[in-house]
Amino acid sequence: MPVPDPVALTQALIRCRSVTPADDGALAALEAALAPLGFRCERMRFEAPGTAPIDNLYARIGTGGPHLCFAGHTDVVPPGDESRWRFPPFEGRIEEGRIWGRGACDMKSAVAAFAAAAGRFIAERGSAFGGSISLLITGDEEAEAINGTVKVLQALASRGETIDACIVGEPSSSETVGDTMKIGRRGSLTGRLTVRGAQGHVAYPHKADNPLPRLVRMLAALSPGGPEAPGPEIDGGSTHFDPSTLAVTTIDVGNPATNVIPAEGRAVFNIRFNDTWTADSLGAWLRDRFDAVGGDYTLDLRHGADSFLTAPGELTGRVAGAVERVTGRRPAFSTSGGTSDARFVKDHAPVVELGLVNATIHKTDENVPVEEIETLTRIYRAVIEDSFPERG
Amino acid sequence: MPVPDPVALTQALIRCRSVTPADDGALAALEAALAPLGFRCERMRFEAPGTAPIDNLYARIGTGGPHLCFAGHTDVVPPGDESRWRFPPFEGRIEEGRIWGRGACDMKSAVAAFAAAAGRFIAERGSAFGGSISLLITGDEEAEAINGTVKVLQALASRGETIDACIVGEPSSSETVGDTMKIGRRGSLTGRLTVRGAQGHVAYPHKADNPLPRLVRMLAALSPGGPEAPGPEIDGGSTHFDPSTLAVTTIDVGNPATNVIPAEGRAVFNIRFNDTWTADSLGAWLRDRFDAVGGDYTLDLRHGADSFLTAPGELTGRVAGAVERVTGRRPAFSTSGGTSDARFVKDHAPVVELGLVNATIHKTDENVPVEEIETLTRIYRAVIEDSFPERG
Ligand SMILES: [Zn+2]
Ligand SMILES: [Zn+2]
Repeated sequence: MPVPDPVALTQALIRCRSVTPADDGALAALEAALAPLGFRCERMRFEAPGTAPIDNLYARIGTGGPHLCFAGHTDVVPPGDESRWRFPPFEGRIEEGRIWGRGACDMKSAVAAFAAAAGRFIAERGSAFGGSISLLITGDEEAEAINGTVKVLQALASRGETIDACIVGEPSSSETVGDTMKIGRRGSLTGRLTVRGAQGHVAYPHKADNPLPRLVRMLAALSPGGPEAPGPEIDGGSTHFDPSTLAVTTIDVGNPATNVIPAEGRAVFNIRFNDTWTADSLGAWLRDRFDAVGGDYTLDLRHGADSFLTAPGELTGRVAGAVERVTGRRPAFSTSGGTSDARFVKDHAPVVELGLVNATIHKTDENVPVEEIETLTRIYRAVIEDSFPERG
Repeated sequence: MPVPDPVALTQALIRCRSVTPADDGALAALEAALAPLGFRCERMRFEAPGTAPIDNLYARIGTGGPHLCFAGHTDVVPPGDESRWRFPPFEGRIEEGRIWGRGACDMKSAVAAFAAAAGRFIAERGSAFGGSISLLITGDEEAEAINGTVKVLQALASRGETIDACIVGEPSSSETVGDTMKIGRRGSLTGRLTVRGAQGHVAYPHKADNPLPRLVRMLAALSPGGPEAPGPEIDGGSTHFDPSTLAVTTIDVGNPATNVIPAEGRAVFNIRFNDTWTADSLGAWLRDRFDAVGGDYTLDLRHGADSFLTAPGELTGRVAGAVERVTGRRPAFSTSGGTSDARFVKDHAPVVELGLVNATIHKTDENVPVEEIETLTRIYRAVIEDSFPERG
C-alpha cells in the first residue's frame, strides 16, 4: 500500500492552479493518493444561480463509528502579481528548506499532511481500526462558500451519515505549528444603514432636513465607550472570546454640490461577534441605538456567520494531548480571527481547527517549512490514534 | 428725451438668452436705453485662465459727488427643461398681469426699473442734478463671479473713481415688493476634511487604524449643541444676524469591500457665518475641534465670501424712508439668504440690497406682476430723489 508522502503531495497540489472556483486537477491528485489507502472517494458537485458550479471530494474509510472527519479546501486565493513572487506561485519549489507557493499554508499542506497521517495509520492498523475516517475537501472556501462544505454536510445528514468529531485544517498556528488551535470563531454580521432626509440649499438649512448629522450620530453611537473611548470593541469579551468588534467600512453620500444639503446618506459596517450575541440580539442592539437618534432610516443586516464554540472538553483535550505528545507543548486555545468553514461544521459535530502557521497566508511568497509539514503529519496521526485507541 | 418704459425694457432683456456666460445682446439693449439719457456707457471685458471672458457695462451720468451706484446683473441661471414652463422662458410674455420668463425677478426687471427710475428723475431734474448716478451691470453673477462686479470695482478704484452709496437690485423681497431689504449677508466657507488611518481586515481591527470613527467624531463635534442638540446652528446669532449654520454636504469613502477597514475618509461641509466670525476665526474653531479628536487629518478651507453688514444708519434710513413713502410700509431689515455681489461692493461703499420678490427665482415659471415692476421703479426713483435733494 503506497502511503502518500506529505511533502510530495503538497507540491502536487500546489502545482494545480486552483484559484476559486477553478480545480485544475487538485481533487484528482488527492483522490489518487487516498483511493489506494482504501478510501471510498465520492465527488459532490453543487451549483446555484449566479454562482460557479463547484466540485467537492468526500472520501471515507470505514463504515461504523466513531467517525472522525477532516475538513479542508484545495481552492486558494489569487496570487496577485506573480512577478513579485520570489518563486512562481504554482511551481511548488523547495528552497531554503521551505515549500513556496500559493496554498502552502492555506491549506494544501494540511490536506496532504492529513492524507499522509491517515495512510500511515491505516498502514499500521489496517482498515478495520474500529471506526471511520473521512476527508471532506471543498473547492469553495475562499470565495462565496455557497457550493462547498455547507452543502456536503447537508447531503451527508440527509442520508443519515453522522460525524462524531471534526478537525478543520485551517492555518491556526501563530509562531510554530501546533502552538495554537481554534476552539471557536466569532460570528460575522454586515449592516447597511441608509438615513434619509430632505434636500435643500445650505443657506436655508431649516427648509431642508440634512440626514448626515443623524447618520453621524448613529455611527458615533456604535462606540459604546462613547466619544472618549471610540475603540472597535462593543463588549468586554467572554470566557473563551475576545471582545466583539465593530468596524464602519464605508460612508457614502456622493453629493458633488457644496451648496446642496443631500437627501440621503449610507454607511456599511461589519461586526465580528462573540458568543454573548446572536445575529438577532445584535440587530436589536443596533436598532435601539439608531431609534434613539430617530428619523427615517433603514437597516439591512446580512448574517455572514454565527459564532461557534466547542467548549473545552473531550475533543479539545484529545487534540491538545496529541499536539503535546508530538511537539512537547500544549496548544493555546483561541477563538480569534476571521470566519472559516468550521461555522458550518459546528451544526453537525464538535469541531476544532488545527493547522499550519498563518503568517504568510493570502500574501506574496506564501511558504511553509518542510519540517513543519512533517510535524503536522505526526500531530494529525496522533489525533487519529487517540480517536481510535487499540482495544487491549 | 425718451424715458425707458420699465416693462418694455424688462421684456427686451428677457428676450436675450443671457445664461451665464452668454450675453446675447442684453447689455446692448440696456445701453440703448441709457445712452439717450446722457449716461456715458463703458464696456469692461475681463477674462482669467479657465473662465469665460465676460462683458460688463458701467454707465454713469454726472462727474461729481455724491455718487449713487446701482449694481446688478443681466445674466440668468439656466431655464432647465423648457417644455415644463407654462410660457417659453425667453419670450417675455405677459399673461395674467405678470411677465413670465427667466430673469423676471432675478433680476432683469430690477435693472429695467432702475434705468426707468433714473430716466424719470433726469427728465425732471436735468443732468445737472448735483451728483452722479451709475449702473454697474455684470454678466457674471450667477456662475463664478470672477470676471464681473469684483473686477469692475477694482478698475474704478484704481482710476480713483469712488462710490458713496450702492443699491444692489437682487430680489430681496419676501411677499410684496419692498417688504424686505438686505442690510447684510452671511459669509460662506467650504471645508474639505480628509482623515487618514491604516487599511486592514475587519477581523483584526487592532492591526488596522480605522479613520472612520475619528471622522464621525469630528463631524459630530461640529454640532456645538452636542448630540442632544444637533441643529445646524453654530452660534446664537448677533444683533443683525441669524445664527451661523453649518451643513455637512457629503461624506465619501468609496470602499466596496465589507471585510476591509479603509485607509481614508473624506467629508465636505459648508458654513454660512455671521459677523461674529471671520474665515480665520472659523478655521481656528474647526481645527480646535478636530485636534481634540486627534489623528492624521487635513482640512482644506475655501473662502467663498465674507459676511457684510451695513449697520442701520444714514443709507439704510434713506432707502427705507423712500420705500415707505411709495408703499406705505417700512421694509424689514434682513441679513438672511445666500451670497450676492454685495459681498464685493461692501469693500468699496455702503451697500444695501433692494429688489423684487424672490419666491420664483431660479425656478420654472419665474414671473413678476407687472405692477410690481412699476412699484419698484417708483421706489428706486424715490431713493434717487432722496440721494440728490433739491437745494432750496
Ligand atoms: Zn483556508
Ligand atoms: Zn441675482
